[in-house]
Amino acid sequence: MAFGYNGKILRVDLSREKISIDSPDDVFYRRYIGGEGFVAYFLLKELKPCVDPLGPENKLIFAAGPVTGASIPGNGRNSVGAKSPLTEGFGEAEVGGYWGAELKHAGFDAIIFEGKAESPVYLWVHDGEAEIRDAGHLWGKDTGDAQRIIREELGDKLIRVAQIGPGGERLVRYACVINDLHDAAGRTGMGAVMGSKNLKAVAVRGHERGKVADAEKLKELARWLIQNPKTWSWAHDLGTGGAMEAFVELGNLPIRNFRDGDFSNAVALDARTIKDMISIGMESCYACPVRCKKVVKIEEPWRVDPVYGGPEYEALAALGSNCGVDDLKAVCKANEICNRYSLDVISTGDTVAFAMECYENDILTDTETGGVKLNFGNAQAMVQMVEKIGRREGLGDILAEGVKRAAEKIGRGAERFAIHVKGQEVPMHEPRRSRALGLGYAISPTGADHVHNLHDGSVASRNPYFEKLAALGILEPVPRENLGPRKVRALIYVVDWCVLDNSLLMCCFLPWDHIQKTEIVRAATGWNTTVWELMKVGERITTMARAFNVREGFTKKDDWLPERFFHPKTSGALSETAVDPTKLEKARSTYYEMMGWDENGVPTKGKLEELDVAWVAHMLG
Amino acid sequence: MAFGYNGKILRVDLSREKISIDSPDDVFYRRYIGGEGFVAYFLLKELKPCVDPLGPENKLIFAAGPVTGASIPGNGRNSVGAKSPLTEGFGEAEVGGYWGAELKHAGFDAIIFEGKAESPVYLWVHDGEAEIRDAGHLWGKDTGDAQRIIREELGDKLIRVAQIGPGGERLVRYACVINDLHDAAGRTGMGAVMGSKNLKAVAVRGHERGKVADAEKLKELARWLIQNPKTWSWAHDLGTGGAMEAFVELGNLPIRNFRDGDFSNAVALDARTIKDMISIGMESCYACPVRCKKVVKIEEPWRVDPVYGGPEYEALAALGSNCGVDDLKAVCKANEICNRYSLDVISTGDTVAFAMECYENDILTDTETGGVKLNFGNAQAMVQMVEKIGRREGLGDILAEGVKRAAEKIGRGAERFAIHVKGQEVPMHEPRRSRALGLGYAISPTGADHVHNLHDGSVASRNPYFEKLAALGILEPVPRENLGPRKVRALIYVVDWCVLDNSLLMCCFLPWDHIQKTEIVRAATGWNTTVWELMKVGERITTMARAFNVREGFTKKDDWLPERFFHPKTSGALSETAVDPTKLEKARSTYYEMMGWDENGVPTKGKLEELDVAWVAHMLG
Repeated sequence: MAFGYNGKILRVDLSREKISIDSPDDVFYRRYIGGEGFVAYFLLKELKPCVDPLGPENKLIFAAGPVTGASIPGNGRNSVGAKSPLTEGFGEAEVGGYWGAELKHAGFDAIIFEGKAESPVYLWVHDGEAEIRDAGHLWGKDTGDAQRIIREELGDKLIRVAQIGPGGERLVRYACVINDLHDAAGRTGMGAVMGSKNLKAVAVRGHERGKVADAEKLKELARWLIQNPKTWSWAHDLGTGGAMEAFVELGNLPIRNFRDGDFSNAVALDARTIKDMISIGMESCYACPVRCKKVVKIEEPWRVDPVYGGPEYEALAALGSNCGVDDLKAVCKANEICNRYSLDVISTGDTVAFAMECYENDILTDTETGGVKLNFGNAQAMVQMVEKIGRREGLGDILAEGVKRAAEKIGRGAERFAIHVKGQEVPMHEPRRSRALGLGYAISPTGADHVHNLHDGSVASRNPYFEKLAALGILEPVPRENLGPRKVRALIYVVDWCVLDNSLLMCCFLPWDHIQKTEIVRAATGWNTTVWELMKVGERITTMARAFNVREGFTKKDDWLPERFFHPKTSGALSETAVDPTKLEKARSTYYEMMGWDENGVPTKGKLEELDVAWVAHMLG
Repeated sequence: MAFGYNGKILRVDLSREKISIDSPDDVFYRRYIGGEGFVAYFLLKELKPCVDPLGPENKLIFAAGPVTGASIPGNGRNSVGAKSPLTEGFGEAEVGGYWGAELKHAGFDAIIFEGKAESPVYLWVHDGEAEIRDAGHLWGKDTGDAQRIIREELGDKLIRVAQIGPGGERLVRYACVINDLHDAAGRTGMGAVMGSKNLKAVAVRGHERGKVADAEKLKELARWLIQNPKTWSWAHDLGTGGAMEAFVELGNLPIRNFRDGDFSNAVALDARTIKDMISIGMESCYACPVRCKKVVKIEEPWRVDPVYGGPEYEALAALGSNCGVDDLKAVCKANEICNRYSLDVISTGDTVAFAMECYENDILTDTETGGVKLNFGNAQAMVQMVEKIGRREGLGDILAEGVKRAAEKIGRGAERFAIHVKGQEVPMHEPRRSRALGLGYAISPTGADHVHNLHDGSVASRNPYFEKLAALGILEPVPRENLGPRKVRALIYVVDWCVLDNSLLMCCFLPWDHIQKTEIVRAATGWNTTVWELMKVGERITTMARAFNVREGFTKKDDWLPERFFHPKTSGALSETAVDPTKLEKARSTYYEMMGWDENGVPTKGKLEELDVAWVAHMLG
């Protein structure tokens, strides 16, 4: 077995209460790496086409990577994947913290959950062993309570818990999986899949540090990071969300359901304000000095419990500006509720924003909202609605289905306010500003998603990020508004690397460049791997995720943006420009051709063979 | 300007006797690297479609790479390119020695020759300057005499001369360019292009060591090589050609025009025999401790002058076994004549073998051979015929056209003995043995060529070469006789890297792996380059060469092997197996699809854009 892995994957059949261990060979590990790669592999290989994502035939995969748990910053993460109940396609999300590292220390590289438990259970994984335990007493509990009880009953305060709250139990389609109460595998509704399996939590504890091939080299790279705080001090000082006003000026901040450009009090939501007013410190992930995660404590008008951490940029924008809300405490409370209930902050915020726009356009009435005045900017209403979603209460029950299904149920033209791609709500970076990002949203296998994408659009200019991209052969900047072939090429290369990051489970905030990351993988595994091989892993997994969606029936028309982005914002920076659908269509074709997909976006046999996954070709008929 | 380059490319208009200097920008250098890359760029960019390769509209490019001339072994090489008079397509060959390093030290990265001199000239390049000089007194001279005279008249014994002998002057279609009298840019007839331009020689001398970004790192890598002689001692001890008997047993050695498998006295041609009997030492290339180049001295029955070096494996097989000749001294003499006259040993040997088979089948008569008994195995006849080719004397005049054109002229069914791809004679590794090699011969833009290819077929087994390939993601060996998708994939990756080597001008005999080579480029240039970027350079150049041929009218049917290889050898190791044309056709389609070429082998627009050479797409209509 290669260094860096345990060589063991837990397989838990919840229906039969059977636990077994897979022992894949070295080539499996090197070809699929971990995280999103494992998810793509198992979903394609083991799922029958077109199963119900909330039925027992779906599988839920938790996976780490080769460096996860090693003594080097940025490697405590894990990935969670399944067929998505939100998109009915490829579902996968990553999460920071400690859980991934703990899983590795407990002796496993991944866990595959199959079937459905008869009644609520949780899995207890510890030092090479695993046990399905009753969770009847935990069901219905907030994540905070559940974690406390699990740690108490197992008698170890250092147990790491990945779990769902009542939102996941109630199958909110965008429920997330919460680690350590505040870190979320947020997108694509993995928490709902967990709920559908009657699986409340996965508690892990391990004492075995895995062996790496070159511990000295890892130390050297860790030392480089520590000695270069300039490269990460932005994250250390404020975490995400420290440029809210600039984002308004640039047009990047979504405002009132992606409609408007004006937002006068953005500073109220800024990470600097949080630091000054309500922060009680910063939290870390495993072995990381960056400590980028805000912890906030508020006593009134809402009590916000610091065990649930604090809001990241995506929460500040989705629950804040995109709902027209500039009340920071309200946003922190809503963020806390999301973490208590295990709701994805992006989809939750977007769904509330959608409902607000419906309400203001008389598509939703006071009767339907249960009397809640769901106007943009009503902080109290926003917080109430988030809680209703978590409980599937009243209108919350409809909104818990996500904007696409909610709009279909509501009818009356609500569909035009449902800002999603493939059923997944759009994250907090404006496609009207960064055109490559928009194309990325349109094509991403998980629906609108910013972790597979060129989210900062910085191929537009020469800056440190751009200089790094030269390592991939992107030698000249392309203007942000451009969507020509050179931009598409840059997007593809960046996406492939992002997908690799999602598979290695390396944090994308850390400043290591492509060469250093490759050195890290080499030091962990002992493989003579290269940026070439790793980029091809990214391309392989991107293409496998694509193939999964093709098999599920997705077509070219699903690779498209919501109509709203083809029109300018009503005001502000992007009030005179929008995505040009003709150019988007052309860029989409270019993307397909560059990827070796046919004109309908279906990977060609030759491309699948070139990516060494010929077995996938047979699935595409 | 990046480290590693001079930033200057000489442009010599021979018609107008005008010399100018191009100063490309950094991005040009990084995108096209050097050598074959520069050739592909200038041929596509500057040649009108379908020009006469022997007319003044053809251009002849001499090019070095970023590391050429730096103090590290394996980097004295240069590339020579033009539209090929042999194939009428993409022409390019590389050559070892000192000339490339000297060009860099003289202040230039490449030279582009345009037009045609009115009367014979040579170019004298020295320390940033260049001068067109009369060569009337050199024309008709053997390379040895010409070099001596040039050095004498310029007063410097250390001048390096790349030149043609009488074979190039007389436009033998497979004339080569000879450096230092014994190193040949052998394939595709670059010497004939030189002759057609009335250009006898390019003499260079320079005293300026270019600056590299990280001299310490280069030293460290050079030190690694010197301290690991086990990785190159095979080349140091014997050079090429030390396994002739094993090659007979494996079926790899071409025997009697690729017809037979038996060759009883292969040991007579072996490098070990040369070492024991006629070697007077080994020659080196610039800054290289390996010294892999044999020097032989013979007094009788032929005088072989050691200034012309000695035979490599390709010469031993082409002029020896492939002509049925086991007379080592005769082979050494023929090799010397090739170097005197500037003839490619492979094409020369193959052409003589072709004539022998014609003769034995009564297609050529004694009248036509001028009384030479041109039977397989007649050493004397072989030597005579090589000289006749160099002089274009009698039958030699027809054979000087290469087997394809000679067969057309001779008629009478001679075509079935003309073993070539796209007009270029097949090199000395058996496609019936290594199926990927055969596919490589068929598709190579230069016609049958082993320096763009998987010439040792070692993807078949786990050995040190194979272990290196894991760095490219080739994780499992594929049997040698297999021609399925995984073999095609391996071939493509290996070809892309070979083409990169041809562009970097790094010797492929040196044991550095992909990671070390990338470190060398990084240390030379200061770029944050990676194996990904470099592989993409290889893919870019492969595709550009393809595009050149498409523009010149080549089609899918040109990507094919001679009929002979679809039948077993008459005897020996491969007497019961041959290339299966159905499998070859399928593999060709797979190759196209994997490369992003359409079903006719034409690069798609998307692929060209992905390779950042969108400008090429416009040329393909």
